[in-house]
Amino acid sequence: MKIEIPREIERFGAIRFHGLQKVFELDSGLKADSPKNQIGTVKQIPYEDYYEIQKKMAIVVPIRSERLRLLEGVLCGIPHKCLIIMVSNSPRTPIDRFKMEEEALNNFCTFVNKKAIIAHQKDPYLVKAFEKTKYANILNKSGEIRDGKAEGMIIGTILAWLAGKKYIGFVDADNYFPGAIEEYVREYAAGFYLSTSPYSMVRIAWQSKPKIVEEKLFFHKWGRASKNTNWLLNQMLSHYYGFESELIKTGNAGEHAMTIDLAMLLDYSSGYSVEPYHFINLVEKFGGIKESPFPKVMKPGIEVFQIESRNPHLHEVGETEHIDDMSFVAMQVIYHSPICPDKLKKEIYNTMVKRKLLSKNVKPPQPVKFSSLTTIDEKLFFNVIEASSYGKVIKEIRS
Amino acid sequence: MKIEIPREIERFGAIRFHGLQKVFELDSGLKADSPKNQIGTVKQIPYEDYYEIQKKMAIVVPIRSERLRLLEGVLCGIPHKCLIIMVSNSPRTPIDRFKMEEEALNNFCTFVNKKAIIAHQKDPYLVKAFEKTKYANILNKSGEIRDGKAEGMIIGTILAWLAGKKYIGFVDADNYFPGAIEEYVREYAAGFYLSTSPYSMVRIAWQSKPKIVEEKLFFHKWGRASKNTNWLLNQMLSHYYGFESELIKTGNAGEHAMTIDLAMLLDYSSGYSVEPYHFINLVEKFGGIKESPFPKVMKPGIEVFQIESRNPHLHEVGETEHIDDMSFVAMQVIYHSPICPDKLKKEIYNTMVKRKLLSKNVKPPQPVKFSSLTTIDEKLFFNVIEASSYGKVIKEIRS
Repeated sequence: MKIEIPREIERFGAIRFHGLQKVFELDSGLKADSPKNQIGTVKQIPYEDYYEIQKKMAIVVPIRSERLRLLEGVLCGIPHKCLIIMVSNSPRTPIDRFKMEEEALNNFCTFVNKKAIIAHQKDPYLVKAFEKTKYANILNKSGEIRDGKAEGMIIGTILAWLAGKKYIGFVDADNYFPGAIEEYVREYAAGFYLSTSPYSMVRIAWQSKPKIVEEKLFFHKWGRASKNTNWLLNQMLSHYYGFESELIKTGNAGEHAMTIDLAMLLDYSSGYSVEPYHFINLVEKFGGIKESPFPKVMKPGIEVFQIESRNPHLHEVGETEHIDDMSFVAMQVIYHSPICPDKLKKEIYNTMVKRKLLSKNVKPPQPVKFSSLTTIDEKLFFNVIEASSYGKVIKEIRS
Repeated sequence: MKIEIPREIERFGAIRFHGLQKVFELDSGLKADSPKNQIGTVKQIPYEDYYEIQKKMAIVVPIRSERLRLLEGVLCGIPHKCLIIMVSNSPRTPIDRFKMEEEALNNFCTFVNKKAIIAHQKDPYLVKAFEKTKYANILNKSGEIRDGKAEGMIIGTILAWLAGKKYIGFVDADNYFPGAIEEYVREYAAGFYLSTSPYSMVRIAWQSKPKIVEEKLFFHKWGRASKNTNWLLNQMLSHYYGFESELIKTGNAGEHAMTIDLAMLLDYSSGYSVEPYHFINLVEKFGGIKESPFPKVMKPGIEVFQIESRNPHLHEVGETEHIDDMSFVAMQVIYHSPICPDKLKKEIYNTMVKRKLLSKNVKPPQPVKFSSLTTIDEKLFFNVIEASSYGKVIKEIRS
């Protein structure tokens, strides 16, 4: 891969936010092809180097009733060395969709000769493990693990951590292009390659997102929800800088990756608010505005990379409602952050009312939050899930 | 890459037609990841191995007024070690589109630190070189090189040959997905890796081709023109086998690659008939029905691989007229082949009339053919083009 080095860096407390990076070449060859003089603005990341990082990477695929045909393509696009972790929240009746997903994964693994992990979000072993490790906030009133994307991500993160992986990346199961999946994972590795801190995050901005407009494809640069979320996050940062910034381009990025060390430190916010909340929570914890709960991290600091993928993002079309949902929850987490300036709070509130997401004189709702995973005892959690089918695979990987 | 070995092989004289092969994993790691026991039906092709083949490969990008935005993506998807050869037939007035393409290519090369070749189809050096080497059939009445895709492919093949490349592959300039381009080129290399003959061809069958149907994307398996062409080619082969065959799935494949040794032996047919004609001409020359003009090739034989790409094929939408065009010229080359059985000739004729492509009692037209490139004198051709900008790049590559 050939990628430009970040043209802008904005420091915010212990965090370095890097500007959007452009990819020039998907496959730039081996180490032997490195230009002797790598001090230019375009960096070659040889195959061997991203391969070494992918060896230590788990790719989490959250799935909920997506078509198996699409899932198979997604699996095919994940580089061989990555550990695949599927977290499914698909219904088990009247048709057992989860079983079909499990079969599809096992079938794939037989052909490509690798091991993979699949767990259901409602799995009783997981419930018990969360109870034992006192992370019961993730359970609903009926004692099941709550629905939602963030909840699935938490499960995926813990399983990757138990399997001893150093990096964790997320890809959606409904992507039409296996080549795009391969690109995202390579870009995750590229970010970690460029990073100098053990606490790093890589977020993908799609170059475009094709939509059908008047019987033709139109390649939108930014989705409506992304535009709004990025604007709000930039406004918040600008308030503290004193300079207006447009640096944040990946506020809603579902395609993102973290070092496990960072993933364990962040709080999670339920459902689709998880992605913008990661930004907010980073700033809350390491932005230097409030005292950091993890002072040791302040020295190496946090690095956030934003990489513009070359492939357009073409996935199954959801409902239009979804966009408003995403915008609304993003606004909620920014609104309720203790670091959100009053002026921005007012603006968010007015937007919510104007867009009829909220009645006047009502306080904006707040998504459920989950505290960071640092409190979870590794041994205890593993002991509970050891007997499950995925627990057995993790044991094999660890040994 | 992980790919199944061909499940069927049909021998036709000295040709081995391999059945469609499925890809299981786009990136299967390095040699160190090869399963010890590679006798299964799925073969790992390690990065190092396809890399070595791509080193010796030229990728020809024929272009005619495609959007530069798309071209840039295509270039980004071509693996670094491949030599890029652009053959443009874009207009030079009122706006010099060719100059814009040249600039885009040079800009790309600056960023990724590589050399590439671009030539215009109407370039006077090329005209002179074809005249000198007595290949004047490619010129029209005004003494210019004829328009058309096949004509551009011939130029690309000669330039790759002069640059000392061993393999040549073709990709279109209007593909929306750089990741698909990368996949095609990797599959070309996979075919050559599996081949045991210096005379090989690799043809890509798209897993699907998305079309907009009622404001949604529908993923067609086969285009209408492909269906028709494949059916006709299979009918022709079946006639000689005595068994009905469905093996041919890539009769119209624009994405294809050849060893230069094979590319130099085949005749070309003008315009869009070039792809099905390659099949016909292979059978004419090496199928054992007629005496081969190249008897030395009969021993190692020809291998034809058909690989099913994982990425859908999403390119700029052409006019609907185009499909009928493609069908019609494919039928023409089959109809006029000396090996086309009488029964099939009649069927083709009736179809042409029925589909109103031909008036009754009129003989089907015939596309212009170009003889194989074996008669071209390498030194002579190179001496003429040496002073051109692309000639200079070739000289640098050769030295």
